Amino acid sequence: MSNRTRILRLSRYKNAALRLKSLNFLKVFSDNLADATGVTASQVRKDFSIFGIEGNRRGGYQIDELLTQLNKVLGKDKLQKFIIVGIGNLGRALINYQGFVKSEIKILAGFDIDPAKFNRKADALILPMEELPGFVKTNEVELAILTVPEFAAQEAFEKLRNAGIKGILNFAPIRLKSDDKVIVHNLNLETEFENLIYFVNTHTVPQD
Amino acid sequence: MSNRTRILRLSRYKNAALRLKSLNFLKVFSDNLADATGVTASQVRKDFSIFGIEGNRRGGYQIDELLTQLNKVLGKDKLQKFIIVGIGNLGRALINYQGFVKSEIKILAGFDIDPAKFNRKADALILPMEELPGFVKTNEVELAILTVPEFAAQEAFEKLRNAGIKGILNFAPIRLKSDDKVIVHNLNLETEFENLIYFVNTHTVPQD
Repeated sequence: MSNRTRILRLSRYKNAALRLKSLNFLKVFSDNLADATGVTASQVRKDFSIFGIEGNRRGGYQIDELLTQLNKVLGKDKLQKFIIVGIGNLGRALINYQGFVKSEIKILAGFDIDPAKFNRKADALILPMEELPGFVKTNEVELAILTVPEFAAQEAFEKLRNAGIKGILNFAPIRLKSDDKVIVHNLNLETEFENLIYFVNTHTVPQD
Repeated sequence: MSNRTRILRLSRYKNAALRLKSLNFLKVFSDNLADATGVTASQVRKDFSIFGIEGNRRGGYQIDELLTQLNKVLGKDKLQKFIIVGIGNLGRALINYQGFVKSEIKILAGFDIDPAKFNRKADALILPMEELPGFVKTNEVELAILTVPEFAAQEAFEKLRNAGIKGILNFAPIRLKSDDKVIVHNLNLETEFENLIYFVNTHTVPQD
């Protein structure tokens, strides 16, 4: 079992619990979370027990308490500061992404090499690449999003690594490798599309 | 072993083979593909044998032939037509995403409920939702991307399903379920961010 998959499931339990809370529910059972996320109830309980999250089979979990614990595991109990490198269509969309507004994810600034994209207004700060190391240090940023074209990815990766960035969500269509200094999570959109296409074309059912 | 993960690996082998080809290589060995994608060579050979892709341990795989076979499995041997529902920042970015230009993925049109977004110019067609069923039928579209806000996701999903769409890549931050008519691949950006944050904050190494 990959630990990445387990953390993905925790995010899904958290999202399901949030929706139940918004419907004024106070308690949730492992069966509810299993239904909402497509796993078995025993999987839910096992995942929770690994992170020391306790409930009981009859009484279920108090939603508020469960959310507090899940948010802590997922780092949602404090602001997570990101920068973004490469302000093309995708980079700009992520800066303006409304889905992050309610979350504790905040993109502090974008960086690019194109002076036409620079912007020093506080609500959509786009700065030259040369200012990246100073900005990262001053603002104590550890997380970055990479949305540059393939040919620019390796160089941008090195710059982020040298600046002290500890985690990169990489959308550039080239697989970058984690090392002892920086964790890379590769998210290749074309690959995600190909995945869907395969299952549709072959009429097979995908299993996570 | 999930079949989704296996297909993801096939995409990665294909991308690695493409890069080797661009460097004028003619042959590739399972060890090369293993290095490039972070799995073992025996995993590469096992994945290939499942899809009837044959090589030999000494001679390796002819890159051109391998690409032909991988592209066929991944549906890249023909044009894959998509529509996109919800033309916000992310929807617009995907329509204009340069990463798809070289691929066989083509987004034919976008759909929205906001008349201010409609556009009937052929290179960036944005149409009212009412025209979706007719467009899907006329253009024989089976694949869709969903980039609407959470509150609009379930209704848009039903419309796509009723229009005969067979596969949906869902970016809306709510988990939609596949059924016998339509396969859903959920891609929640906030969840991907949370995943990276967890591994950075806990200093643990993610394993796929």
